[in-house]
Amino acid sequence: MIEHKRIRCGGLRSKVMSAEQAASFITSGSTVGMSGFTGSGYPKAVPLALAEHIEKEHAVGRPFRVRVWTGASTGPELDGALAKADGIEFRLPYNSDPVVREKINSGAMEYFDMHLSQVAPMAWQGFLGPLDTAVIEVTGIRPDGALIPSSSVGNNKTWLDQARHVILEVNSWQNAALEGMHDIYYGTALPPNRVPIPLVRPDDRIGDPSFRCDSDKIVAIVETYAPDRNLPFAPSDGTARAIAGHLLEFFHHEVAKGRLPASLLPLQSGVGNIANAVLTGLLGSSFENMTAYTEVIQDGMLDLLTAGKLRMASATAFSLSPEAAAKLNSEMTSFSDKMILRPQEISNHPELVRRLGCIAMNGLIEADIYGSVNSTHIMGSRIQNGIGGSGDFARNASISIFMTPSTAKGGKISAIVPQASHVDHITQDVQVLVTEQGLADLRGLSPKQRAVTIIENCAHPDYRPALSDYFRRARDHSYGQQSPSLPGEALSWHQRFIDSGSMLS
Amino acid sequence: MIEHKRIRCGGLRSKVMSAEQAASFITSGSTVGMSGFTGSGYPKAVPLALAEHIEKEHAVGRPFRVRVWTGASTGPELDGALAKADGIEFRLPYNSDPVVREKINSGAMEYFDMHLSQVAPMAWQGFLGPLDTAVIEVTGIRPDGALIPSSSVGNNKTWLDQARHVILEVNSWQNAALEGMHDIYYGTALPPNRVPIPLVRPDDRIGDPSFRCDSDKIVAIVETYAPDRNLPFAPSDGTARAIAGHLLEFFHHEVAKGRLPASLLPLQSGVGNIANAVLTGLLGSSFENMTAYTEVIQDGMLDLLTAGKLRMASATAFSLSPEAAAKLNSEMTSFSDKMILRPQEISNHPELVRRLGCIAMNGLIEADIYGSVNSTHIMGSRIQNGIGGSGDFARNASISIFMTPSTAKGGKISAIVPQASHVDHITQDVQVLVTEQGLADLRGLSPKQRAVTIIENCAHPDYRPALSDYFRRARDHSYGQQSPSLPGEALSWHQRFIDSGSMLS
Repeated sequence: MIEHKRIRCGGLRSKVMSAEQAASFITSGSTVGMSGFTGSGYPKAVPLALAEHIEKEHAVGRPFRVRVWTGASTGPELDGALAKADGIEFRLPYNSDPVVREKINSGAMEYFDMHLSQVAPMAWQGFLGPLDTAVIEVTGIRPDGALIPSSSVGNNKTWLDQARHVILEVNSWQNAALEGMHDIYYGTALPPNRVPIPLVRPDDRIGDPSFRCDSDKIVAIVETYAPDRNLPFAPSDGTARAIAGHLLEFFHHEVAKGRLPASLLPLQSGVGNIANAVLTGLLGSSFENMTAYTEVIQDGMLDLLTAGKLRMASATAFSLSPEAAAKLNSEMTSFSDKMILRPQEISNHPELVRRLGCIAMNGLIEADIYGSVNSTHIMGSRIQNGIGGSGDFARNASISIFMTPSTAKGGKISAIVPQASHVDHITQDVQVLVTEQGLADLRGLSPKQRAVTIIENCAHPDYRPALSDYFRRARDHSYGQQSPSLPGEALSWHQRFIDSGSMLS
Repeated sequence: MIEHKRIRCGGLRSKVMSAEQAASFITSGSTVGMSGFTGSGYPKAVPLALAEHIEKEHAVGRPFRVRVWTGASTGPELDGALAKADGIEFRLPYNSDPVVREKINSGAMEYFDMHLSQVAPMAWQGFLGPLDTAVIEVTGIRPDGALIPSSSVGNNKTWLDQARHVILEVNSWQNAALEGMHDIYYGTALPPNRVPIPLVRPDDRIGDPSFRCDSDKIVAIVETYAPDRNLPFAPSDGTARAIAGHLLEFFHHEVAKGRLPASLLPLQSGVGNIANAVLTGLLGSSFENMTAYTEVIQDGMLDLLTAGKLRMASATAFSLSPEAAAKLNSEMTSFSDKMILRPQEISNHPELVRRLGCIAMNGLIEADIYGSVNSTHIMGSRIQNGIGGSGDFARNASISIFMTPSTAKGGKISAIVPQASHVDHITQDVQVLVTEQGLADLRGLSPKQRAVTIIENCAHPDYRPALSDYFRRARDHSYGQQSPSLPGEALSWHQRFIDSGSMLS
């Protein structure tokens, strides 16, 4: 590290300092744009030093909080540490850290949950206020001062462009072979100066391999050697495999009907147990020559790439288990022509999702009998993570699929409810709903037809009679018959869970 | 009419017949794609003849119903007549006809309420089933057989391409000078063959002036001379003018802040009293050189074009009062270089709305304290019209604005409620909310910050204390604090209205 090998631009070596020194550039009340997307490529030293500084300030009675913007979720050294220090006043656009979640749900932190494709444009338009400091992890600095991105791109281009000053973390844990894997598009603009984004296939390269950055804005460079937060992977269970089975059968059916090409269309997939079971299902399927245009490359996609079933994957970040991360790190060069990491405004861009006709596969917390989906708020009020990119993909996909086990909390919560307690995806954007019970193809159906299909195909047998009963009574007594409902009862299942710990009566 | 002047393609004149004869090509159980968008350009003779035929069949005990697809709403001679005859089994994608509405809300008709930009792609993908017959009003037929569109374009291109056979209505009431005003883009495709849509300004022409149509598919041509359904215009009242005033002030503020260009950005505006008051406000404002990229050209836009304040307007249809329609008809040539009518998949395309950065201005039925918007379902179940293009524009606009009087039914309904009884626009897509009480700029705010702003700025004083009380109690007792709620009470205002005729307790 003393040789500053990763800092190939000599003029910048004088700015190397400790994380503590670097953190001192961040003042209370300021807004900080950090790198990081699903535990990849977030700064690992400066936020920790900042949290320590904040705790000291609080200990002597001085208030100190900042506004934190990121790509999406980060790691415990960033969100966790700063939240524990009670150092975050306002957070956007996505979070999955348990400490931050607790602060939000206790009312101690304000959280602005955003469509991930819209963060950069909204920042450019000035709606989010000025950005004081960018803290960005990079893999290295090139001789010309250009920055080699890390294991996520996220909003880094925008933070680097917009911040008054920049702090870099050069993380030599990141594989140097990442250089060249990124595609940073510099053609975006504000209206009325926007032009078509010239991407027509997931494998198109339309930008630079590195970030441009005004060297005069760089106030500190911190060298680190620290791993991304790679969460151990939960193996898929029978429920996940059943969901995957229904979905695979559906894909085969759509290909047979001529509504999907034999190699499908670019896949977008969330993360987690069920998403991975679907990808594992595709690994054993007859589908070949597939592509992905998605947010993150997770274990299942790496397996599909390795097997040659997936021709290439475009994303904005990796989201890997420790084993998969080790595999990728040791074989990085063999993946370099099969992966492209892009800014999240491009990986999630509605224009591109619609053009490519992505098959969107996302999870949910609950869906109602008409297929409105709640992705974010447990019992309508308690944030889980955030909407993330699900809205970018679901509305513009050629097929928008939502997947969930039919129950949660050991059967005490039904994923299918009379009315969603919060809505993130409206019925028009939810075309296929899958649980381990079955698949509901909702395309072309009216709300009442959707309700019958969802209750019959997706609801758990323990809740099906109560859902059918609600729907029947709603048909008898509703104010209108487009989407029959009983407002006095529609959210009673949620109130029952809050009161008694179970939706079952 | 005997001279078939508008049918300049000699080979097609042999297909001229009566509406009754033409209607006989439509069989029970079939799917019919009709022209028409907000009462413009819909067929006026064949649907009436079909309705008459259906009534006769029903009178002798023979079932006869069809599935009806259109651009959006139509006129009484189409939706009204067919619904009155109980001849519509299934309807998409939008409706404002009172008889159809009544049939839907009594449960006698299935209605699939869709994003208007997605109708054509979904039809091409085959999700809606096969299309048997297209019934399309045109202004005329060119010598080469190309069809000169009428006063709306809607989904006509898709219906003509997809239908097994085609019935044309040549309406000589439509001004022949409409020829050349349309821009029919033939570059759309299904994925994986989609390419960027080459439109970067509202005035760009990217297609043909007429529809292509395989003459062999044309089974009947009916000549008509019949006006569009032009609804008389409701003059704006104090409430509408107050809403317009708040919005104009906001536009000036955004320009002063450098967040909007001096000529604003392309305007999208719904129809009706309030939308027109806003356009009238713009007529008296200092804004110059404006453009519109919108669904329909209504009276206010025509006035802005006449005054030269609006440089040009792109839409998919006219939606004019009888006076404005007469003015346009008599001065059509002077507007021909200031207006472009496009297919609705282009007028509403998310790619283009985002690229152009439209300022979206739409109405609503109710919004909740967090800014979720219900545009479609009264009391959560009774359909009013449909989502129309509001989702296409609101999610992709540079500023998404929703406007409404703060109360309805003489104060018995509050437009601001604890929780929306149905959600069409999620909080992320609702950036500015305006009532006659004031304007809430919600950009960059967390849900709790949004609630305070909406209650203070937008709610009617009669309902403000009850909303504040609900929000305070929700903060005290909610399961989580991201979007505090009380599920057992959240929809009680709607139940109270259903039970007692008023939301006031």
